[in-house]
Amino acid sequence: MDFIEIAKSAKQASLEIAGAGVEVKNKALEAIAKAFEENKSEIFEANNHDLEQAKILVEEGRLAKSTFNRLKLDENKMRDMIQGVRDIAKLQDPVGKVLLKRELDKDLVLTKVSCPIGVLGIIFEARPDVISQISSLAIKSSNAVILKGGKESINTNKKIMEIMNNALQTVSEFPKNVVQQVFTHDDISQMLKCDEYINLIIPRGGNKLVKYIKENTNIPVLGHASGICHIFTDKSADIDEAIKIIVDAKTQYPSACNAVETLLIHKDFPQKNELLAALQLNEIELVQDPENWDTEYGDKILSIKTVNSLDEAIEHINKYGSGHTDCIITKDAQNAEKFMNNVDSAGVYWNASTRFADGFRYGFGAEVGISTNKTHARGPVGLEGLTIYKYKLIGNGHIVDEYVKGLKQFHHKDI
Amino acid sequence: MDFIEIAKSAKQASLEIAGAGVEVKNKALEAIAKAFEENKSEIFEANNHDLEQAKILVEEGRLAKSTFNRLKLDENKMRDMIQGVRDIAKLQDPVGKVLLKRELDKDLVLTKVSCPIGVLGIIFEARPDVISQISSLAIKSSNAVILKGGKESINTNKKIMEIMNNALQTVSEFPKNVVQQVFTHDDISQMLKCDEYINLIIPRGGNKLVKYIKENTNIPVLGHASGICHIFTDKSADIDEAIKIIVDAKTQYPSACNAVETLLIHKDFPQKNELLAALQLNEIELVQDPENWDTEYGDKILSIKTVNSLDEAIEHINKYGSGHTDCIITKDAQNAEKFMNNVDSAGVYWNASTRFADGFRYGFGAEVGISTNKTHARGPVGLEGLTIYKYKLIGNGHIVDEYVKGLKQFHHKDI
Repeated sequence: MDFIEIAKSAKQASLEIAGAGVEVKNKALEAIAKAFEENKSEIFEANNHDLEQAKILVEEGRLAKSTFNRLKLDENKMRDMIQGVRDIAKLQDPVGKVLLKRELDKDLVLTKVSCPIGVLGIIFEARPDVISQISSLAIKSSNAVILKGGKESINTNKKIMEIMNNALQTVSEFPKNVVQQVFTHDDISQMLKCDEYINLIIPRGGNKLVKYIKENTNIPVLGHASGICHIFTDKSADIDEAIKIIVDAKTQYPSACNAVETLLIHKDFPQKNELLAALQLNEIELVQDPENWDTEYGDKILSIKTVNSLDEAIEHINKYGSGHTDCIITKDAQNAEKFMNNVDSAGVYWNASTRFADGFRYGFGAEVGISTNKTHARGPVGLEGLTIYKYKLIGNGHIVDEYVKGLKQFHHKDI
Repeated sequence: MDFIEIAKSAKQASLEIAGAGVEVKNKALEAIAKAFEENKSEIFEANNHDLEQAKILVEEGRLAKSTFNRLKLDENKMRDMIQGVRDIAKLQDPVGKVLLKRELDKDLVLTKVSCPIGVLGIIFEARPDVISQISSLAIKSSNAVILKGGKESINTNKKIMEIMNNALQTVSEFPKNVVQQVFTHDDISQMLKCDEYINLIIPRGGNKLVKYIKENTNIPVLGHASGICHIFTDKSADIDEAIKIIVDAKTQYPSACNAVETLLIHKDFPQKNELLAALQLNEIELVQDPENWDTEYGDKILSIKTVNSLDEAIEHINKYGSGHTDCIITKDAQNAEKFMNNVDSAGVYWNASTRFADGFRYGFGAEVGISTNKTHARGPVGLEGLTIYKYKLIGNGHIVDEYVKGLKQFHHKDI
């Protein structure tokens, strides 16, 4: 089937699932979880097939070892994947929430109610568990979804999708074509152009992929290209707190997007040498004044800069940062307040590790991704980020002319 | 100054105004209102200059009479313009609102707080009062703004901008370059490409302009290209209510985007002929089954289609509509509910004129525009649509490693 036909059928599916009740959606999710349990050996088999081919590529130096590791599905990842589907089933329905209810005039009632966005386009790299996670999020938020995965995991992806769609067919009230998959590079090009049917693109993958997508579509994109996170050690910082936070932010999971990349130190911070020595003791490689301030190391490497003032720190972050998550370590509440107000990032932290920037840690119960956008959704995005709203207006033959002529007046009473 | 320099200075201004208090912003707005009052003769003079040139174009048939009328500033429009600025000053500050406050763990508090988007790019056609309105909305929401107006109103635009910026300079705490203007077609091209500094584009003008902008930028665009609104007269509709609502929706202001363009009538509605005759009596021209179902007449002309069922009506609207505002006239609550749930539009109405789709009528106190987007803001957009949020996290040396190792647990308590 060509891409436009798939997109059209997704659009139709999105209109049908928009009205699905939460029981039907949860039934669908449980059917998926159960089907994964019952058919996991088939998934492992498909995954092994992918791994064999990937292994050759790794040996030839054509695939990174880290990609190979992400590609691999083991019993632990499978258990997490299945649990993930069930966790999403347990979350509150994000659709149908009344966000505002207002009587505009007698018998004329406006209701703002959350609803799905429509069709999501997902482009992800070699992590086959993304299919199950994003499909479950889409189902729970009543959106249709078209997924394009990395070619390295194509057998695993196909098998997971087959099992999911077989499971969904057993739920009679569940509409067809809610979850679909495409495979070619040409499909990506078409997806990015398909603003008639696709309402939101979510890329899950590296810097390059996300940047490419953001630059090549006028469909809204939810995500972040890079995570250049900063920690500013103010002159009044507590040295122990600083060491603890910086070590955590850099080493707890160095390849995460919320790991710190640049440490700014106030010139009057008295224990600078002590701090740097402690970081080195924790196996962090320090790069004083690197050529580029926007390198995402993804490793235990940290850029270091001495700044003359809080203002210089803020300016540096707003200039070189990616608007992801930035932290100040200080005992000075006024400085902290100024930092948090003036740093233009999704997360602005005071005396806490940047690694907290995560939907689960924020208590959202699920994470669609982390966004550095300035519209729609910013920071860690939960299910809510897959919804928008519509306005329902219920009248009784009400017309505007009577208000324009002053025969009637709005009273705008929230109810 | 070239566009990139203007955009950079706007970005800087946006960072400075982000922290401005509501008193400063309101003081700035009052200074603008007062300056308009004191200098209105200068504005009228500039406007006369534009009108003289526009008059020649109208006589030569190169400018529509309606554009000429929109261009003209009279005492009434001036009074509305000044009142508009003061009304925005009276609104609640949309910035700094606490949207969520959650204790993730002891002494680790997450706050989601509303904040400005950054830099707005506004492209509008010949309605000089847009400058004052959008600039005031930008100031109140702590955003910087770059405006590009139509060339027909260039003298008026320049004068209004000059008076505004002179007024803003008298408010010492107010940052520079919050409100700027550009003039050439090349500036538009550069604005659409300038995703490094511009965060949101708002086009105010006709179908063609908005469509062009949406297709030529990957910066988020807030607006609507067209307003193909529908009214579906169900078989149980009350004839008097139907006539009243349809006449209002078509004739009260036919060139508005929320005016109705297509009337769908259920085949079993018994008083179809009576209804159509009444519409004609109200000077509405009826077009039975036109070639195109997506014509925005902007005049007292209405497309008519007989449908076999509610489902067919919904399908027609989702296929040909613009997702703006659509209405069902019925006595059947179940049909109304189904219509409102399944029609995928920003406004779904039951027994009320589509003309109610308006920020003031919804009680928002201001209107940025009407959006048919499926992300960020949909329907009539108030000041809230010019904001996003950031997450502030305040800890006490908290690190992620302790949670990953199970030494500490999140308790996620909303406070």
